[in-house]
Amino acid sequence: MKAIQKLSSANSSGKFICVGLDTDPRKLPAHLSASKNPVIDFNRMIIDATKESAAAYKLNLAFYESEGISGLKNIEETLSFIPNDILTIADGKRGDIGNTSNMYAKSIYEHFKFDSATLNPYMGEDSLAPFLSYSDKLNFILALTSNTGSGDFQKRKMDDGNYLYQSVIRKVVDWNKNSNCGIVFGATNAEELDDNINLLDELPLLIPGVGAQGGSLEIVTRILFSASKTSFLINVSRGIIQKSTGKDFAAAAKNELTILNELISKSQLKIS
Amino acid sequence: MKAIQKLSSANSSGKFICVGLDTDPRKLPAHLSASKNPVIDFNRMIIDATKESAAAYKLNLAFYESEGISGLKNIEETLSFIPNDILTIADGKRGDIGNTSNMYAKSIYEHFKFDSATLNPYMGEDSLAPFLSYSDKLNFILALTSNTGSGDFQKRKMDDGNYLYQSVIRKVVDWNKNSNCGIVFGATNAEELDDNINLLDELPLLIPGVGAQGGSLEIVTRILFSASKTSFLINVSRGIIQKSTGKDFAAAAKNELTILNELISKSQLKIS
Repeated sequence: MKAIQKLSSANSSGKFICVGLDTDPRKLPAHLSASKNPVIDFNRMIIDATKESAAAYKLNLAFYESEGISGLKNIEETLSFIPNDILTIADGKRGDIGNTSNMYAKSIYEHFKFDSATLNPYMGEDSLAPFLSYSDKLNFILALTSNTGSGDFQKRKMDDGNYLYQSVIRKVVDWNKNSNCGIVFGATNAEELDDNINLLDELPLLIPGVGAQGGSLEIVTRILFSASKTSFLINVSRGIIQKSTGKDFAAAAKNELTILNELISKSQLKIS
Repeated sequence: MKAIQKLSSANSSGKFICVGLDTDPRKLPAHLSASKNPVIDFNRMIIDATKESAAAYKLNLAFYESEGISGLKNIEETLSFIPNDILTIADGKRGDIGNTSNMYAKSIYEHFKFDSATLNPYMGEDSLAPFLSYSDKLNFILALTSNTGSGDFQKRKMDDGNYLYQSVIRKVVDWNKNSNCGIVFGATNAEELDDNINLLDELPLLIPGVGAQGGSLEIVTRILFSASKTSFLINVSRGIIQKSTGKDFAAAAKNELTILNELISKSQLKIS
């Protein structure tokens, strides 16, 4: 199934939350420390508890790569727990010269078989082209991120009056010939989301920054539904997977996901 | 030894070439296919043949990560062949929100123990801060890259009259409080290098794009030495490691490195 079909199938069932598996081996519930592979036990139980209501799963590659070889094995095993019809995102923010980007694309899309990846646009079109050539995949390109450093360059004005992040969005609209591009737009930038909702056109959005980083789910979904935008994912990582650090962590994750889905559903009803 | 000391020690001995170990398992000399680990045999022989004259070694992480678990083992083993006084660079162009960037920094600087890394500035200061906190390391931040896509954003003009890549350089000068920052500046942009040589200040440069990508070693070194800039690395990957694809690949790499060093030495003499 094409990545974009997995997304639209989830979205049309009222599922908009992407569960971020930023699984930090040093922050796992204490009782898992006796397990042979605590990260895998944790991820398996989180996925089992949330797979009925999650729109997607995003694996933050850094959290796995920092564990070296065992971390890469954990990526493969974690992906095997995720039902085939749910979108998987490799969050690595890659972008490099052509032959190198090609290696990254092969690794993410062919070796690990992710449906989707996050990409950094700084090096321009040819640095992303190897990813964009996979027409069945979905490439979320950073435009305006959720961190404070987004002010350093992304929110700087260009001489044509656009902000840099707006120039990126315009380029991505051009690059979207295979209908396999999306945009990363941080929830902490609600005002900019509102201002640019038309510029974002048909591009699916991946929206991090709700919860620990300070973005508001209510505000963001109100903006999106008011503009009839229904192709998006709100990523929540720590807010779900670290909701409880006790033995009930999986049930707590499931419960939190249910609460978030209900909030979104109410927001959608209010507007429609 | 601090990374910056390794660099200045190499540069003051007239060594400016960084050997790029972009080792592509599918492009190795045919006779190595019988080996148990062709990539490792190749890297070991290249390093043995070049370590007397190389200023640094850069491992392109994508080429290793794309091989999964065996690739990560190959990074560790390759690093073990490199003499301790030679600078090692992890070329992964990382950059992410704080807790994730922290994971990448730990992986590159603590797990693998690289001396240096390449970083992508798009997400701003807090995305690089975890790397910049390692005062013994050297962080090469992308400003103007060697690929054609550098025109998409890096060479776009901002409303203050600066190009985006110039804004990045100005920020890096600010961020260089631990004297552990450098700049990636592509050799294909010789005119811009000349125009910005003063802006680059004391920042060490990592210069890719000579050879296969079309940059000229002579032009670039003339610009640098004319401006009395002596803290830099010219990266050559394919031009050295793929100079011969026969049994003489290591000798051919050594010979090519000698030729490049002589060209640089002549360029330096001409100007001084």
